[in-house]
Amino acid sequence: MSFTYEYPRGALTVDCVVFGFDGGELKILLIQRGIAPFKGEWALPGGFVSPDESLDEAALRELEEETGLRNVFLEQLYTFGAVNRDPRERVVSVAYFALVQPDEHTTEAQTDADDARWFQISEIPELAFDHSEILKTGLKRLRGKLRYEPIGFELLPEKFTLPQLQRLYESVLGNELDKRNFRKKVLSFGLLIPLDEKRREGPHRPAQLYRFDPARYEALKNEGFLFEI
Amino acid sequence: MSFTYEYPRGALTVDCVVFGFDGGELKILLIQRGIAPFKGEWALPGGFVSPDESLDEAALRELEEETGLRNVFLEQLYTFGAVNRDPRERVVSVAYFALVQPDEHTTEAQTDADDARWFQISEIPELAFDHSEILKTGLKRLRGKLRYEPIGFELLPEKFTLPQLQRLYESVLGNELDKRNFRKKVLSFGLLIPLDEKRREGPHRPAQLYRFDPARYEALKNEGFLFEI
Repeated sequence: MSFTYEYPRGALTVDCVVFGFDGGELKILLIQRGIAPFKGEWALPGGFVSPDESLDEAALRELEEETGLRNVFLEQLYTFGAVNRDPRERVVSVAYFALVQPDEHTTEAQTDADDARWFQISEIPELAFDHSEILKTGLKRLRGKLRYEPIGFELLPEKFTLPQLQRLYESVLGNELDKRNFRKKVLSFGLLIPLDEKRREGPHRPAQLYRFDPARYEALKNEGFLFEI
Repeated sequence: MSFTYEYPRGALTVDCVVFGFDGGELKILLIQRGIAPFKGEWALPGGFVSPDESLDEAALRELEEETGLRNVFLEQLYTFGAVNRDPRERVVSVAYFALVQPDEHTTEAQTDADDARWFQISEIPELAFDHSEILKTGLKRLRGKLRYEPIGFELLPEKFTLPQLQRLYESVLGNELDKRNFRKKVLSFGLLIPLDEKRREGPHRPAQLYRFDPARYEALKNEGFLFEI
């Protein structure tokens, strides 16, 4: 007895929204499409899911194939299934979301991509398919998470200064924060460990370096603590 | 020029995690499968996505076809794509999530379902496919949302008492809450409008009725207010 269904079927893809922060502005990793449709245009890295791989595996594989990025923690973002989102035929895409430090990952275009490059959020070109909408959903998730979870630390180097952390928040949230309030609030959680080091940035006096305390965060979370900026 | 892809393709389904609360315990809406595989077993309502409908449309259609439930606000939950999650072949399922008041919705099994019924969370049978995992993901989302958003009010009648609200929180979170603290906290948000009515519940003295103030919640949210229980 066979259970195989006779339903007409569309194709299934994965797409990756990869955010990076290098100290200045928030960035996103895009590829230039090497094949039609939208050949030559910029798009999120992604591609078709094979029958023998899970969605997570497909996302990791496509990201590495098209951008060279490996060992990235990908989290599922949302599935996009509007009927005409792909000019070829019905294609449903499961979008993924990742945060990385661009310095730690060299990018290299491969397979179906002609180029892979980091773009500042303020300078993103028109994207192929509905990828602008997917990116918008990713930005919304990033902003939400940044307010409720200390994920900002994934985007920063291990040692960072408070001005660096503030710049990250400002660049993701898209507005300026009061230095004094930010400092007070972020230190109040007890999640930042001050180090015996300082770093000079520009013409200012050297700034204290900190590192994030993930063990303390886990402990607080288990007590029902809410991180909030 | 045709862009059609030659990739082998799996099937795509939607599944719905519908929670309800009738004052006592949290419930979930399940259907009894009328066809193989897992014929006769309980499962989440759902089915195959047609080429000419969006994922949201498919979820609404399947929910109505299999349970009679209409006019429900469905929100996308997560997409499940493990390679062997369906014994027939590769099937990826986009799960949806909804909160309803069971009293307001009559259920009626149709099409591929033999029965549609509300189950108390504590009495859920073994489910078909990976639906226990999908349900678990839905419960986790519900618990998270209940802490950060005033969604509990979607599960309650328009007028409710504080003991009713507390019972809802306890039943979703799975632990008892201190009556005094709960009352103090929930009233501190200024989101509950006391009504000129009381309701007697059991042997206790009549309890004040309240209704939720969605306009005030919207205003507070725009000011960056965080609802937290």
